[in-house]
Amino acid sequence: MGEFELLARLRERLAQARGRVLLGSGDDAAVTAPGGATATSIDAMVDGIHFRREWSSLAQIGAKALATALSDLAAMGATPGEAYVALELLDGLAALAATTDTALAGGDVTRAPALSLTIAVVGHAPSAEDLVTRSGARPGDAVVVTGELGGAAAGLLLLDPATDVSLHLPVDKAGKCKLTRLIERQLEPQARLAAGQALAGAGATAMIDLSDGLGGDAHHIAAASGVGLRIDAAALPIARGVAEVARATGTDPLELVVSGGEDYELLATLPPERVDEAAVAVAEGGLALTRVGEVVADEGVEVRLPDGRVSSPRGFDQLG
Amino acid sequence: MGEFELLARLRERLAQARGRVLLGSGDDAAVTAPGGATATSIDAMVDGIHFRREWSSLAQIGAKALATALSDLAAMGATPGEAYVALELLDGLAALAATTDTALAGGDVTRAPALSLTIAVVGHAPSAEDLVTRSGARPGDAVVVTGELGGAAAGLLLLDPATDVSLHLPVDKAGKCKLTRLIERQLEPQARLAAGQALAGAGATAMIDLSDGLGGDAHHIAAASGVGLRIDAAALPIARGVAEVARATGTDPLELVVSGGEDYELLATLPPERVDEAAVAVAEGGLALTRVGEVVADEGVEVRLPDGRVSSPRGFDQLG
Repeated sequence: MGEFELLARLRERLAQARGRVLLGSGDDAAVTAPGGATATSIDAMVDGIHFRREWSSLAQIGAKALATALSDLAAMGATPGEAYVALELLDGLAALAATTDTALAGGDVTRAPALSLTIAVVGHAPSAEDLVTRSGARPGDAVVVTGELGGAAAGLLLLDPATDVSLHLPVDKAGKCKLTRLIERQLEPQARLAAGQALAGAGATAMIDLSDGLGGDAHHIAAASGVGLRIDAAALPIARGVAEVARATGTDPLELVVSGGEDYELLATLPPERVDEAAVAVAEGGLALTRVGEVVADEGVEVRLPDGRVSSPRGFDQLG
Repeated sequence: MGEFELLARLRERLAQARGRVLLGSGDDAAVTAPGGATATSIDAMVDGIHFRREWSSLAQIGAKALATALSDLAAMGATPGEAYVALELLDGLAALAATTDTALAGGDVTRAPALSLTIAVVGHAPSAEDLVTRSGARPGDAVVVTGELGGAAAGLLLLDPATDVSLHLPVDKAGKCKLTRLIERQLEPQARLAAGQALAGAGATAMIDLSDGLGGDAHHIAAASGVGLRIDAAALPIARGVAEVARATGTDPLELVVSGGEDYELLATLPPERVDEAAVAVAEGGLALTRVGEVVADEGVEVRLPDGRVSSPRGFDQLG
């Protein structure tokens, strides 16, 4: 698939009729008729940093860019609305072609120095009060996380040619290889939109998507809310296959789970008495919700390790 | 100014209190409470294509990115609302620093391979009917243009080291060199927001901002509206200094005016009986409004040259 087709497919997917869009692309600006509250986020993905052209198809790159952008809306509990894409290599090519009188006849981007994709996404809610920020966590709240963690980081290890690893490839019940699933977690992340809305509806007081890693993202909630988060490492839901990859590569599995990032699961806080209701609502979308800790008054994030030690992770590469 | 300062200044400028913004940057998404109709556009600027790092300060690059994005809102007649910025080199640097445990301590981007800046802008209007698309031009409408044309293209010639030109530098009444003004037109374009709203209020039937050049942009209106535009080259308002630059470089001044692009003036169509009212409204913002042609039923764009020849420009480099 060439990049024109990538853009065409993105446009097609984005154009899937939304009642609010009165005028789509092709004019100076798109025109929408929003109501209530609007949540907007912009994300850039650059070849070599956020993805690697040699590991991903253009379809995967486009889907990852959209999914990671939508993940921010999921973390607000917003209903996804519109998305606006800037495919910068294409823009650059088109402008250069116009100034140099070159015909653009489709083609491939594998020889291009840098592919860059920026997506702005817009989501909606009946009112601003229905959206969940990072700043509402209160001491006594439970800390919960959706789905499973560590899969994207383990997938990255599997993709990295520097990783010298020989592994059995156990096939799970659904007939899919566990390790393939880990690679999919890395290359094809999913935005937890339904879970975000379910958690918002179940009274989440703060919420964030796990892009940097549980440690760093927990710090964002703690700092924005002026509270502390205490996380029980033994309670963390570890993705299937992560333990095998960690063992085979001599990595601490908790490092993949806590500091790995890119799982795009949701980390939320909410009153303890509403955890069960939230779990039922999140389960409707096929995802587990796991209670992994609590909010305390003392600021900072602490992860209690199974051996009794306490770690204060801030992000990548910093878990002892 | 380093790129962190650039981003900080952009944020500061963008944060200038807008009543609709309930939550600015720093959370997963910004939260706004729009009403009526919303116009949204996303634009990418890449080093070497849309600007040259060696010709512009970072402040100029940031301002040009914002101005060219806002120019799309001007062409809709929208009131500017919010802007969302993705500074991709910074994103890339920050991500790379996080994964490599490198401290970022400000600095300069001159050694970076590519600086890329994407801005999504959001504008507002009481209703969608108050916004001006490209598709409403009707035969019999007058064609008007704001300000002066050709300045940005002449400025580009002056900046290009390949241009071998020796010129007097006439100083105009305001004490500023004419040629400096041309370079400013290239490096520091202005979005014609007030003029766009004035034209919308005066009944503009179609409108576009002149980014590609009058020839190409007129074609966009003609194609979207299913009409033709007949433009009288002798009527086109040529920026001061363009004639001198054209003479000194052996360039046809009309090529700079019609095909040069990047002037970011507005090209609009409206009923002839409303041109005077529109000119008065546009003049309130200090800009001239010039009638340069008419809308006809036969599709296509024709520019009648002073010598009686007719040219059908489509964009850059194609005027006879």
